[in-house]
Amino acid sequence: MNQDYIKPDNWSIIEEGFDVERVKSSESLFSIGNGAMGQRANFEEHYSGPTFQGSYIAGVYYPDKTRVGWWKNGYPEYFAKVLNAPSWIGINVFVNGNTLDLFRCKVVADFRRELNMKEGWLSRSFTATMPNDVEVKVETKRFLSLDLDEVGAIEYNITPLNTDAEITFEPYLDSGITNEDTNWDDKFWETTAITQNGSQAFIEAHTMKTQFHTCTFMESVCLLGGKTLEQEPKVAHTNVRIAYEYTANVKANETFSIQKFGGYVVDRNHDKTHLVASAKSVLSKALTAGYTALLNQQKEAWAKIWDMADITIAGDVKAQQGIRFNIMQLNHTYLGKDARLNIGPKGFTGEKYGGSTYWDTEAYCIPFYMATKDQKVARNLLEYRYHHLDRAIENAEKLGFKNGAALYPMVTMNGEECHNEWEITFEEIHRNGAIAFAIFNYYRYTNDYSYIPEKGLEVLIGIARFWQQRATFSTDKNKYVILGVTGPNEYENNVNNNFYTNYIAKWCIDYAIENIKIVAKDHPEDFDRIHDKVNLSEDELRQWKAVAENMYLPFSEAHNVYLQQDGFLDKELITVADLDKSQRPINQKWSWDRILRSPYIKQADTLQGFYFFEDHFTTEELERHFDFYEPFTVHESSLSPCVHSIQAAKLNRMDQAYTFYLRTSRLDLDDYNKEVEEGLHITSMAGTWMSIVEGFGGMRVIENTLSFEPKIPQQWEGYSFKVNFRNHILKINVAQTGTTFSLESGDALEIVCNGTKVTLETGKPAVV
Amino acid sequence: MNQDYIKPDNWSIIEEGFDVERVKSSESLFSIGNGAMGQRANFEEHYSGPTFQGSYIAGVYYPDKTRVGWWKNGYPEYFAKVLNAPSWIGINVFVNGNTLDLFRCKVVADFRRELNMKEGWLSRSFTATMPNDVEVKVETKRFLSLDLDEVGAIEYNITPLNTDAEITFEPYLDSGITNEDTNWDDKFWETTAITQNGSQAFIEAHTMKTQFHTCTFMESVCLLGGKTLEQEPKVAHTNVRIAYEYTANVKANETFSIQKFGGYVVDRNHDKTHLVASAKSVLSKALTAGYTALLNQQKEAWAKIWDMADITIAGDVKAQQGIRFNIMQLNHTYLGKDARLNIGPKGFTGEKYGGSTYWDTEAYCIPFYMATKDQKVARNLLEYRYHHLDRAIENAEKLGFKNGAALYPMVTMNGEECHNEWEITFEEIHRNGAIAFAIFNYYRYTNDYSYIPEKGLEVLIGIARFWQQRATFSTDKNKYVILGVTGPNEYENNVNNNFYTNYIAKWCIDYAIENIKIVAKDHPEDFDRIHDKVNLSEDELRQWKAVAENMYLPFSEAHNVYLQQDGFLDKELITVADLDKSQRPINQKWSWDRILRSPYIKQADTLQGFYFFEDHFTTEELERHFDFYEPFTVHESSLSPCVHSIQAAKLNRMDQAYTFYLRTSRLDLDDYNKEVEEGLHITSMAGTWMSIVEGFGGMRVIENTLSFEPKIPQQWEGYSFKVNFRNHILKINVAQTGTTFSLESGDALEIVCNGTKVTLETGKPAVV
Repeated sequence: MNQDYIKPDNWSIIEEGFDVERVKSSESLFSIGNGAMGQRANFEEHYSGPTFQGSYIAGVYYPDKTRVGWWKNGYPEYFAKVLNAPSWIGINVFVNGNTLDLFRCKVVADFRRELNMKEGWLSRSFTATMPNDVEVKVETKRFLSLDLDEVGAIEYNITPLNTDAEITFEPYLDSGITNEDTNWDDKFWETTAITQNGSQAFIEAHTMKTQFHTCTFMESVCLLGGKTLEQEPKVAHTNVRIAYEYTANVKANETFSIQKFGGYVVDRNHDKTHLVASAKSVLSKALTAGYTALLNQQKEAWAKIWDMADITIAGDVKAQQGIRFNIMQLNHTYLGKDARLNIGPKGFTGEKYGGSTYWDTEAYCIPFYMATKDQKVARNLLEYRYHHLDRAIENAEKLGFKNGAALYPMVTMNGEECHNEWEITFEEIHRNGAIAFAIFNYYRYTNDYSYIPEKGLEVLIGIARFWQQRATFSTDKNKYVILGVTGPNEYENNVNNNFYTNYIAKWCIDYAIENIKIVAKDHPEDFDRIHDKVNLSEDELRQWKAVAENMYLPFSEAHNVYLQQDGFLDKELITVADLDKSQRPINQKWSWDRILRSPYIKQADTLQGFYFFEDHFTTEELERHFDFYEPFTVHESSLSPCVHSIQAAKLNRMDQAYTFYLRTSRLDLDDYNKEVEEGLHITSMAGTWMSIVEGFGGMRVIENTLSFEPKIPQQWEGYSFKVNFRNHILKINVAQTGTTFSLESGDALEIVCNGTKVTLETGKPAVV
Repeated sequence: MNQDYIKPDNWSIIEEGFDVERVKSSESLFSIGNGAMGQRANFEEHYSGPTFQGSYIAGVYYPDKTRVGWWKNGYPEYFAKVLNAPSWIGINVFVNGNTLDLFRCKVVADFRRELNMKEGWLSRSFTATMPNDVEVKVETKRFLSLDLDEVGAIEYNITPLNTDAEITFEPYLDSGITNEDTNWDDKFWETTAITQNGSQAFIEAHTMKTQFHTCTFMESVCLLGGKTLEQEPKVAHTNVRIAYEYTANVKANETFSIQKFGGYVVDRNHDKTHLVASAKSVLSKALTAGYTALLNQQKEAWAKIWDMADITIAGDVKAQQGIRFNIMQLNHTYLGKDARLNIGPKGFTGEKYGGSTYWDTEAYCIPFYMATKDQKVARNLLEYRYHHLDRAIENAEKLGFKNGAALYPMVTMNGEECHNEWEITFEEIHRNGAIAFAIFNYYRYTNDYSYIPEKGLEVLIGIARFWQQRATFSTDKNKYVILGVTGPNEYENNVNNNFYTNYIAKWCIDYAIENIKIVAKDHPEDFDRIHDKVNLSEDELRQWKAVAENMYLPFSEAHNVYLQQDGFLDKELITVADLDKSQRPINQKWSWDRILRSPYIKQADTLQGFYFFEDHFTTEELERHFDFYEPFTVHESSLSPCVHSIQAAKLNRMDQAYTFYLRTSRLDLDDYNKEVEEGLHITSMAGTWMSIVEGFGGMRVIENTLSFEPKIPQQWEGYSFKVNFRNHILKINVAQTGTTFSLESGDALEIVCNGTKVTLETGKPAVV
């Protein structure tokens, strides 16, 4: 963890000074994306030092043959790898024949990198003394267009400082790339054609097995002393690479520039037989606009995002920087335009974990997208799972379930399970619960019931069927039990009667039954359609009810708390505070068995249930469980601090809430887990947003009414956020002295603040 | 399973008819070995059909880099692979230039293979019509010498039947071999020199990483029409192969023969810089004796083994064949001559599972070797673990244990753990118990206490320390508990308070304390030496006692049985009899989670405790537990039927005992588990022996006296076995009418039969 590495700044992520040890970490932190593609902040010019090259296209993956030590029946055949795509950012630079390579320069000075969050671009500048003693000054800027989301643009300026020099720019495309994450060093890409067309170049390549066809393209414009360089470039290509060379004799202190436009078109959006034509069309739009206009459009597009999604924090620049970094990276990853996409755990910043979709989406991300975008974005995320229902049913069948029971995958790209640890893949089944909960949460927040009769009910029925079949009757307990699961706390495996799992299983069944009744009554045509499709009998519903009504929930009378699982009290209950610091993080210091038999909790588990179902419990119950479990929690999952921050705020423990907030919001910026070089923790960033809006802001929907209990850490002068609630745009401004609610658009809205009803109208801020 | 494939025969394993589908299975079943090396029954001549080539040298392995899907802290870096060694058996045969290859012949007739168990050789005969229409008759015989255990001999006879023919024998050595079992397709062998010396050839090769230096050698003699062929052979070699060619013009019905001698010398037994000289010396001995004399010595050597180890069964040829097959294969694998070796689970018949040493050795194999060999063989097996004590302490340290606590590995070649599934490697810790039990068992049987003060006590102390540290105190139960283990039943993972584990843990501590006292009193010098070395305090012993005296053992009042683990009664207790047959074997039909939450038991678990500690429980208790657990047992481990056979016999359930006996004794011959092509189940073969001697024979050592309760299945006319008990050789002959005890050597011995004391003297059989 290094809290001084990134310079504090309200609107930018800034690195000053060149450190080869930090290159890979910075490549993660300075990543950019536009929802359709994204890339690590690799240098444009050649770099021979340690680097992790990554450029990713949304929805493009490779089913890598599963690698395990010991095969277990039921393991999926493959793991969907996040795939490094052909590179289009490369611009090699030669100065008097010498390659510019920061790893080999004699001096690198004034190195500065900035990710401008407000305007959506990445810049880099430095001066370097090259091995041939030419001193050059370089300034680059790069962005991935939000408006034309298949294209990115780079401006690369170089100025020789101590001599005239012959300088060559070699912009190139390269499909001879490799993956960091590969099981068997398979070849992931097949390059089928390289096409040159004047100053344009195209590489057509498709992924092996999945046959995602792509065309990577580029076109460049060079300027010398501000004037367009009219030059027929030299062309060189191999079977996986095409490069152009633009050479100029540049005077000392004169600037030679290249503007390079590049990107991808993919057959998800275009006819695969005409990808080059599609790419030409994209390039034409980009070059017609030109670099400067495109950059201006970018600034406007980001201004729109920030207008809705920004959270301001006054008086705490690190907290401010942290939340904006989180909001920006979420928008890099997913903008909600395409229901076929989802929110990968590392977004477009790395390859680790594979897959694009985890329960993180439903448990952590949907609230953010629901409140900061149009509600159809959240609906897209729900529909993503609806489209995968048949695969979830197949997945459950593989594990022995029947009759349309659905088990959604732990990790997926296309609906199929692709994780392969039995204790996760087969046993971390609570994920099904979050998928049902998201349907409930969407309706609660948006009041859009239409999703349930149209699509959601089928998902709820598949999930309820799974839980009914997965629960078994214990004659010993005279209750239904759920044996052999892994809860949200992955530091327990194969436990019996995980409270969270049993509770949400029961809730899923109850909620499915409730909605079957509503749809039957209020949407009879939908009901008939669904009924014909799923063939649900009264007898089956009776079995569901028997399970839900008799679900066992482990409880300790002595401690007056629900137990995380059977046998939890058999552990040596030594709190984290009493655990020697040298033993942490336990996931790096201890063998797995020791972690498993310890009481230590990776992330909210019982408390995750209290988070989802807060209204089912009294505040005293929440406090008792928080006091029982948090002291055993090591927060070694990125998803842990946010839930605890929200609950600490609810319990008026503002110092603790603030500490958790900093940890969640600056997890990557300060590299708490010492792994940022592998990529960012995207999905937990939505948790950061929740810890302000739901934690400090106390926002809830209670009895169909938006409700707040605003609190403010003493470290802050004030903070503000906006939400889109049922097409009303509200701005909430919390100061130490009180809260101002402004309705920015929409009809008058009645909300509740600290238990008091407040009616909001546009132009009439209410101060509470 | 095919019960007709191997012809029933009292003394031979016989296959008739050539079936390409069976080649790999037969290669396993007809395997031969001599304790120092062993090999699958691969054909000498070229075979282009499906085959699993395997020749193995005891103690030669390769640390293959571990392969897992998801790394867990504490996993070993490598897995010790059983290593296919350079091949010396190859003799290619060319007839008029045509390669003899049974996969390509027009007709293969009268194919017969025999593994003569009595005399210790493998033969094969067939007639074949070759692609060039030459009909040949082939007869081969092969054995690995017990007397000269670095050498094997082959006689290969070929007779053209329908024409004169030019026939070439091409005997060769080949170190360009591969492993079936490899994680990363590493190169396992480096060939350093190929040497020719007249009719002798040598390949020096060493294993990568482990640097086991070997010299593979051969020398051949050809005979035409019974007369030695004087011919300078042609020589050809590559960098991994050397071949000689002997060619003769053979008349129709004349026989051309080659006698090939080959084998290995290894640097475990010879100076690695003079391996060729050592090999020459071995060849010289073999050729001086000649093929026929060597074969006669082999017959004599096997006669000696059988004289002591044979079990006869009258009236049931399949049962007879089964037990002899088991006894022979055990003797192929391990003869007890070298304390650095152990009993691999597949012996020299395959590569699966890797490693050479499992808890199988202590739990299943030691009784066989103790009773059928000199007692120093069993002591060698104990010393093997003593030599690995430091590594076991290191292994425990890796998992967080301290102060000399020892955790023996689950799988090993050299004392280091090399398995890599957390639920086995880290949690199947009961293996420690069997290692302590074997010390107890050795002393109980041999009355040789000297091992304990000399070596065993240190092992017992390391093991007791492990258990004391591994148990934790549950304030909830007010008892010590052992959380997160896998018991002998590997169809449960990460359970709490496995009865077997807790029971043997408590016993280990008690037994260590008992022996500390005895050694302190009776062997004060040893005690002082050990005390100085291990630094054991009274305070530590008090902690041990606290754990042992307060060990929690899960028990059900309702069922009046100890529970296999906490929560066992929460399962759906549907017996195997009520489980649809289509669902079996569950390890091939069900996903792992389903197996784990089921009640089904892979092998004796609670009952394994009742087996080891039979005298701690009443027969009624045994019966109650047998009746409770056996109905849930699927016996999908090769180690399961034998224990159940013994206990069924104890409970006078002779039909059940007989069924279990057949299953254990013919497991491989009848291929119950449909996997015999991967190799044989060697260690469970010792369980087969136990199921006769301890099961039907009812042999026990009770109060320092050898005791019997002979029973006999109704299917048998009689059976007999011999044991070496404290240097008395007893023969026990059980008939339907009674049992005859004969003391073949040693002083008079008092035994107990069915509760009655009997004094045995040589020459005076006692009938009971």
